Parts: sequence; structure tokens; C-alpha cells
Amino acid sequence: MEVGFIGLGIMGRPMAGHLAKAGHRPHVVRRAKAVPPELNAVVHETARAVAESAEVVILMLPDTPDVEAVLFGPDGVAEGLAEGKLVIDMSSISPTATQTFAERIEAQGSGYVDAPVSGGEAGAKAASLTIMAGGPQIHFDRARPLFEAMGRSITHIGPRNGDGQVAKVANQIVVALTIEAVAEALVFAAKAGADPRKVREALLGGFAGSKILDVHGLRMIERAFDPGFRVALHQKDLNIALQAARELKMALPNTAATQELFNVCRALGGANWDHSALVRVLETMAAHEVG
Amino acid sequence: MEVGFIGLGIMGRPMAGHLAKAGHRPHVVRRAKAVPPELNAVVHETARAVAESAEVVILMLPDTPDVEAVLFGPDGVAEGLAEGKLVIDMSSISPTATQTFAERIEAQGSGYVDAPVSGGEAGAKAASLTIMAGGPQIHFDRARPLFEAMGRSITHIGPRNGDGQVAKVANQIVVALTIEAVAEALVFAAKAGADPRKVREALLGGFAGSKILDVHGLRMIERAFDPGFRVALHQKDLNIALQAARELKMALPNTAATQELFNVCRALGGANWDHSALVRVLETMAAHEVG
Repeated sequence: MEVGFIGLGIMGRPMAGHLAKAGHRPHVVRRAKAVPPELNAVVHETARAVAESAEVVILMLPDTPDVEAVLFGPDGVAEGLAEGKLVIDMSSISPTATQTFAERIEAQGSGYVDAPVSGGEAGAKAASLTIMAGGPQIHFDRARPLFEAMGRSITHIGPRNGDGQVAKVANQIVVALTIEAVAEALVFAAKAGADPRKVREALLGGFAGSKILDVHGLRMIERAFDPGFRVALHQKDLNIALQAARELKMALPNTAATQELFNVCRALGGANWDHSALVRVLETMAAHEVG
Repeated sequence: MEVGFIGLGIMGRPMAGHLAKAGHRPHVVRRAKAVPPELNAVVHETARAVAESAEVVILMLPDTPDVEAVLFGPDGVAEGLAEGKLVIDMSSISPTATQTFAERIEAQGSGYVDAPVSGGEAGAKAASLTIMAGGPQIHFDRARPLFEAMGRSITHIGPRNGDGQVAKVANQIVVALTIEAVAEALVFAAKAGADPRKVREALLGGFAGSKILDVHGLRMIERAFDPGFRVALHQKDLNIALQAARELKMALPNTAATQELFNVCRALGGANWDHSALVRVLETMAAHEVG
């Protein structure tokens, strides 16, 4: 299939690579850095040209304004779309903005699927991403073979555009708040004089057990704060959560508090630390380290 | 072995039953309710008499003041102890008070192990409790056969009395904050119009995956708020956490905030709801239900 791929960053590059390996031909936009030759990509001057040449256009961009600019800016995707094409936005962006973008694209006769991922750079490289998709069944079915080339756990959350983004926001809330929970527990244990390694082991067997306690708990104990997933990116996601909650008229009290703690993490110089380094904020608040 | 068992409540009754089945003879205190005949217990008039007759005395009591009264009150355990006996406190109580209790018991020539459990009534009945023990190795080794009759995952957290209680506090922090995290995520998903069942399923496969998302997340969706583990009991545990943190001079910001949310749960009439009903507080704050 002729597949447009816009956003060849840390995530997008390996994802487009898996599509190429699966026999699809990537269409990309010329950029400052050279396009990796192993993609065998067709290089275009504009997003519009990509949309004109490809049947499906995938976006993998940092944030909501980037998606809006690439879709609807001058020489953007929307200018190159025609009846029957499909836009798949795999960026993690605002669920409410996604609904608006989808309506505008569908008004032009093209389909839209939002399909944010979790699993990070490692998941992108290993083609083991978790993909959470929203949009009409017919468009999801068309996108599925592409998803299968890039991910392992693929869920069609619902038929409404934005449903995938809602699931991704929910995911980032749970991950952030569980990291914070593990951080409070391990700093408490250390400050109280117990061995955080033993506490982590004991807790893994019961209801406190989680992937976060396993992986990020160990990172906290071993002081392994190279990313992983960067504090600044998790802050972007929690910002989407809090903004959406405000628009929906609802409260996310611990998400809001945890975003504040991430602010402290950045005050400590941690924008590019792994998000498990949130423990350093709790350690500062206890004048005591876990590791 | 002649084993004193003080505290034949919802947890203590099945735990003492497993000890009896394993061939030990329980020594208990006469109480208002009849002592279950299947225990084949020796019934005494006072905790002192239990301590005089048994080699090991196990306590399974509601809170710190109960343990203090049974150990050091009139006709209490301390009055009946002699050189070489062992006190095992399986209640979930203050780690700092535990250190004081252990010092007083050890000053009399007896050993002390704190060994709180998680797993609830179901775990007590199935002899599948998670047991987190603190105290000198020699005392832990002596207690281990008794633990093996009552639990499945048994961890000697450390040689210091209170280490077991510290691990239990850490456990209760993680469980409460993860329940709160899942509640925020599912209420957000529902309010944003996505299907919380699908969101839970998608999240279980990734870094947001946890036992709490699995079990308590499903309870929230299915409105299954019969306990389980009661809100009032989890509040007791978080109170221990916050009190200990204050004594240790450290902050537990999300634990404190979540304790406040549990206060709201009780305001809604939920003292005896399962702790997963914390979701009702978030629902109230969103004017929208998950289930």
C-alpha cells in the first residue's frame, strides 16, 4: 500500500520502518535530517503532496498544534485528500480536538482513525506497541493490517473519533499516578528504615502488584533515570488530561497534584529524566533517598 | 505447638483454624461470642493466662491501641510471658509503636515479630495471605512454620521490629493510590464518552496494567461494591501511614489527598463499601457514572 507517514521522530522512524518491511511504500516529507534510506520512501516537498500520492496518511507528531498544522495548515494534508482516503493519527493529542479534526476530514469524504500508542521507543522498535483506536469500524478494519505491522496489543476502543485518545489519556493518568504511588511507598519505607528492595518484592505478590512497581520501582531503587519516557512528555500528556477534564467539567484531583509534583521534578532539572525520577521529588520532601 | 491466638475476628478465626488444622493447639481468651468448636481451643479467662500456657502468642487485632491494651494492660500478655516465649503481632498497626512494644517485650526476655498480612478475608480463609515480617532472624525462623500454615507469600522484610509494619503501610499506600488512579481514569473515559470496559481491557496489556486495574477496575464497572476490603479499614491504614509520616518528618501528598477522598466516600454513606467504591467520589466530582 502507498502509505504517507508524517513525523519521522524517535517513534515514527521505527514505525515507518516496520511498514516498509511489511511491504508498504512510505511517502514522506523532505526534512532537515536525511530520510533513512532503508525506508525506500518516496520523498515529497509538502504534506499535501504526500496526501495526493498515498492511499492512507499516518501522522506521528508531538502535540495537538502540530497535528492541526500538518492537517489544515498551508500545503497541509487536507489540501491533498480526495474521496475515500484515510487519515490515521497515531500522535497522542487532545481527544476533543481530535473530534473536530475528524469531522473536518470526514466532511471532505475521507476517513479518520485516531490511534495513539503506548510502549515508547522500545515498543516502536520491537513492533510491540499497544495501539488504542477510535473511529468507525470500516475505517478501523482498513487500518488494522498497518497496526499489526507496528503493534502487538490492538484495541478498537469505540466507533467514535477521540475514543482512542481518551484511552491513551486514561493510560497516562494511571501510569503517572501509579509511579507516584510507588514513589510515596518506597520513600516511606526507606525513611522508616526498611529495605525498599524487600518491600518491593513483598508487594509484587499481592494487590499492590503492577508493572510500574516492577519496572519503575526497580528503576527508583537502582537510580536508573535515563529515559525511558521523559518527564516533559508525561507532563504534556497530563496537560492534555487536565485540559480535557476542564472542557468536560470534571475533576482529576490526583492527576492535578501529580502534575504539580512533575513541575518540581523539572525544577530539580529533570525534564529529560525518566518519569520514574518523580521519586526524587518525594525524596526531596523527605530529605531521604530510596537508592 | 501450644499457640496463643488473641483476636478471633473475621481474619483471626480462619487463621487460627488453619493453625489447628496444621496440628497446633490454639489457646484463646473467653469472649462474648462462643469460641468456634472446630478450633479445639483451650479457653482462658485472660490474655495473661494465654501467655502463661502457650509457647507463642499471636495477636490479630484491629488497631494500635488494641494491641497495646492486650500486651500491656491489666492481665495482659506481658504479665504472663517468661524467658524464651515469642509474641507475633499480625495486626496492621503503627510501625513506630511496634518498635516500642517490641523493646518492652524483649526486655522481658521474649522475642517479638511483627507480621501484618494482606489478602483480606478471602486470603485468610484460603490460607493464601501475603505475610510481611519484621524482627530478628532467629525469631522469624521460629515463626515461619506458623506463617506457612496461614499464608502463601512470606517475606522477611528485615531484622528490625517494625519492618513488617512498614511494608504493610507501603502496601496500603500503593493499593489506595492505584485504586484512586484507576477511578480517575475510568471516570474520565466514561465522561468523555468512551466505553470504560474497552479502556480497561486496552490498558491491562501495557504499563498501566495492575491487579487493581484488573480486579477493582472491574468492580467499578460492574458496581460490585460489597466488601472485599472496607473503606473504613483502609482509612485506618492510611491514618497509620500519615501519622507515621508525620513522626518521620516526611510528606505523602497523594496519600493525604486520597484519605480526604475516602472521607467523601464516608460522607456518601460508604464506610462499609469496598474500597473500590472510591470511584463514587470521582463520579460525584464529574456528575457522571462509570457503570
